[in-house]
Amino acid sequence: MPPKPLDYESINKNVKKAQYAVRGELYLRASELQKEGKKIIFTNVGNPHALGQKPLSFPRQVVALCQAPFLLDDPNVGVLFPADAIARAKHYLSLTSGGLGAYSDSRGLPGVRKEVAEFIHRRDAYPSDPELIYLTDGASKGVMQILSTIIGGLGDGILVPVPQYPLYSATIALLGGSLVPYYLEETANWGLDTTELRRSVSQARYNGINVKAMVIINPGNPTGQCLSEANLRDVLRFCYEENLVLLGDEVYQQNIYQDERPFISAKKVLMDLGSPLSKEVQLISFHTVSKGYWGECGQRGGYFEMTNIPAETVDEIYKVASIALSPNVSAQIFMGLMVNPPKPGDISYDQYFRESQGILQSLRRRARIMTDGFNSCRNVVCNFTEGAMYSFPQIRLPPRAIEAAKQAGKVPDVLYCLKLLEATGISTVPGSGFGQKEGVFHLRTTILPAEEDIPAIMDSFKKFNDEFMEQYEDQRGYSRI
Amino acid sequence: MPPKPLDYESINKNVKKAQYAVRGELYLRASELQKEGKKIIFTNVGNPHALGQKPLSFPRQVVALCQAPFLLDDPNVGVLFPADAIARAKHYLSLTSGGLGAYSDSRGLPGVRKEVAEFIHRRDAYPSDPELIYLTDGASKGVMQILSTIIGGLGDGILVPVPQYPLYSATIALLGGSLVPYYLEETANWGLDTTELRRSVSQARYNGINVKAMVIINPGNPTGQCLSEANLRDVLRFCYEENLVLLGDEVYQQNIYQDERPFISAKKVLMDLGSPLSKEVQLISFHTVSKGYWGECGQRGGYFEMTNIPAETVDEIYKVASIALSPNVSAQIFMGLMVNPPKPGDISYDQYFRESQGILQSLRRRARIMTDGFNSCRNVVCNFTEGAMYSFPQIRLPPRAIEAAKQAGKVPDVLYCLKLLEATGISTVPGSGFGQKEGVFHLRTTILPAEEDIPAIMDSFKKFNDEFMEQYEDQRGYSRI
Repeated sequence: MPPKPLDYESINKNVKKAQYAVRGELYLRASELQKEGKKIIFTNVGNPHALGQKPLSFPRQVVALCQAPFLLDDPNVGVLFPADAIARAKHYLSLTSGGLGAYSDSRGLPGVRKEVAEFIHRRDAYPSDPELIYLTDGASKGVMQILSTIIGGLGDGILVPVPQYPLYSATIALLGGSLVPYYLEETANWGLDTTELRRSVSQARYNGINVKAMVIINPGNPTGQCLSEANLRDVLRFCYEENLVLLGDEVYQQNIYQDERPFISAKKVLMDLGSPLSKEVQLISFHTVSKGYWGECGQRGGYFEMTNIPAETVDEIYKVASIALSPNVSAQIFMGLMVNPPKPGDISYDQYFRESQGILQSLRRRARIMTDGFNSCRNVVCNFTEGAMYSFPQIRLPPRAIEAAKQAGKVPDVLYCLKLLEATGISTVPGSGFGQKEGVFHLRTTILPAEEDIPAIMDSFKKFNDEFMEQYEDQRGYSRI
Repeated sequence: MPPKPLDYESINKNVKKAQYAVRGELYLRASELQKEGKKIIFTNVGNPHALGQKPLSFPRQVVALCQAPFLLDDPNVGVLFPADAIARAKHYLSLTSGGLGAYSDSRGLPGVRKEVAEFIHRRDAYPSDPELIYLTDGASKGVMQILSTIIGGLGDGILVPVPQYPLYSATIALLGGSLVPYYLEETANWGLDTTELRRSVSQARYNGINVKAMVIINPGNPTGQCLSEANLRDVLRFCYEENLVLLGDEVYQQNIYQDERPFISAKKVLMDLGSPLSKEVQLISFHTVSKGYWGECGQRGGYFEMTNIPAETVDEIYKVASIALSPNVSAQIFMGLMVNPPKPGDISYDQYFRESQGILQSLRRRARIMTDGFNSCRNVVCNFTEGAMYSFPQIRLPPRAIEAAKQAGKVPDVLYCLKLLEATGISTVPGSGFGQKEGVFHLRTTILPAEEDIPAIMDSFKKFNDEFMEQYEDQRGYSRI
């Protein structure tokens, strides 16, 4: 019998090539252990509500009313919902043509795209055109669509930071393109260096790759650094000189835990650079409702903004978006609410402010506690989490641990993370899932466990780690370099 | 200056090749006219709520409560919500790990997948395994994922009915595969003939295409026919003999407007056929919350069930689903509600029954009124809409109309539909967007306008059509063949 079309040997080879460690071996093992009754702390994925973060009340009230519009005609609606939530629900329903049950325009509701444009205008002090903003089912779907517009085959390359969030490597593999890595410098707080960018592009071109785009993740995932304005200027000049589209993954723009480098968007820096760059560099910027202090991952809402993209291409992107009809409408409304939250003086403002600041201030403290915790462990060094939701400590594995992993047929940091999981229930992602320099090992953990639980989690981690190091260091002692 | 990577000439050629007429030229022109203040009747897309269909109350109450779980602790919740909706909301929240704001497992919530499996078991009288059911953001996304698993390049072919819903042709083009058309027979009520299937496969193989899968749409879109059990048996035997995966697009399974051929799933027919077919034929079946009497298009909920797919491939499909993290969670709950609606005796049952039957009975009447209306028009013949949501009349264009279209550089049915739109505001999709035999022309319209509006719409259509025919028929008269 010949193999069937959906037998493993027959399927699309690019599907088999794609790797996505965030839900890979470690996650699958954690899910098994959970089924067996073990308590698992899922810090593998930035999923705040799964770790107990409460949703912000106002947006949930508004979307609940949009789902149940008949409540708006009920004289008792005011018993359960504040007046400004009721008014907002009416506003968003007026932007739809048939409520949450009707497909919207494939680019998203025009009224919400207008609110996004106004938000970008306020944020950057440069105007933004709603016609160049497309709403998506989470930022990931937007990234995938843009990469599929750029990549036409194996010869097309995308510059991606290493370490990187594996959405990029996985999607490039699925699309049959080439990942062109540029290394972030751990000793310079995961800084981005244009010399390294030039080296990477030259080497790829020498190998026959047509390098077409560059990805930045700012704040960084998994690395947590915030790019400086000077760094962004360098990147944009580099893209201009090398004729690259810049993909700006800015989904963590609300998650900033230091004051030296506030978030600044690639779009603003580009506009500040003025002509010719501001009119020439092609830029796509991504945002989401999944991160920030919203953390509304399960809603699947996002947008991308296109800068300096010709109209014919914008139309092609619209056409492809149309094939799946429309992004889900309730998440579009979450996006509207995120970019246009309650204002001082609104009935719900005080509650909204209290809730959102509570989350943000706690994340800031958690970033500090976790970084300090990792740095107190034997053979572990960790840059401070300046932004985003992750710590990415380097684990300096003793040679005997590396040898043991080799014997077990595992990548060394996978072995470490598996043992950590079995011993403590802490579910992390090995650094190898994000890429790292040869012979160097990391893990990624979110900073999302409840603040009051973190000291115990870090104690448990330290106990495991220090025993692990003890076990694998040889008699002579393995000195920390 | 060389072209930039997102200039039209640089982008992925497959993106440019893909066509999706449902939101193509006609839709764009209709949107323009609407902006100019013209009243447009959007019958181009099966989007019931956009044409005034009211959502079913019970599922909206449940999902509203899931969005606002704090209401469940409010002593006044019973003022606005019935007790069974409250209980259901608690049930679904208990299936999540963090409510609607948390990513679910990438396959969807295990508890909802179990409800889907139970529904399939009740429907088909054969068991279904929740581990082989994956929830998706609408059925379209599921179809796209499965096609991307099958298609590895230009040599890989998919048998697709013509006329077909262009999700298939567009996705195959995007993925760089080959569409292998088989023609449905209009004079046999859009019947599917295995002789034609064999002809099509032979010809494709002769041309070097590796035909891997076959699509059926049952009930048909745009053609509205319901496949008989005998027809489905033939198709499954054909797939077995020719080593093809069958993709069963069954999103209209609730939309049946005659009693001779009730819906029967490909899965049930396959199981009825017994061994070896029931153990060998690879089948993927798709369903959605967008159609039926739910019409919850904007929520973006769907599932696919895999039959006879090896575990390694199921794992690969899981891995790829993981890259975009999870389908939106509120639509997963809609799916749970759709497959597990209120039962007799439940507080909300009477209302649910009244609402759903009201919609279904009205659609049945509308199918009849529209078919009869089309058949009363000059040079128009239309098969009865047995199921789904569309009428697909053949428009017998006079030679002079075809000539006029050629002069205008338009496909003849595009010209006809544009003129219809300008004259009446009725926004349809030309038959050429779905594929049709050479020299034969159609249009697709939904049967979704409000029942009370349909007579006027059909009068307006008839007036336009008959004048159009009058205008383009030559002096000698153009006889209806």
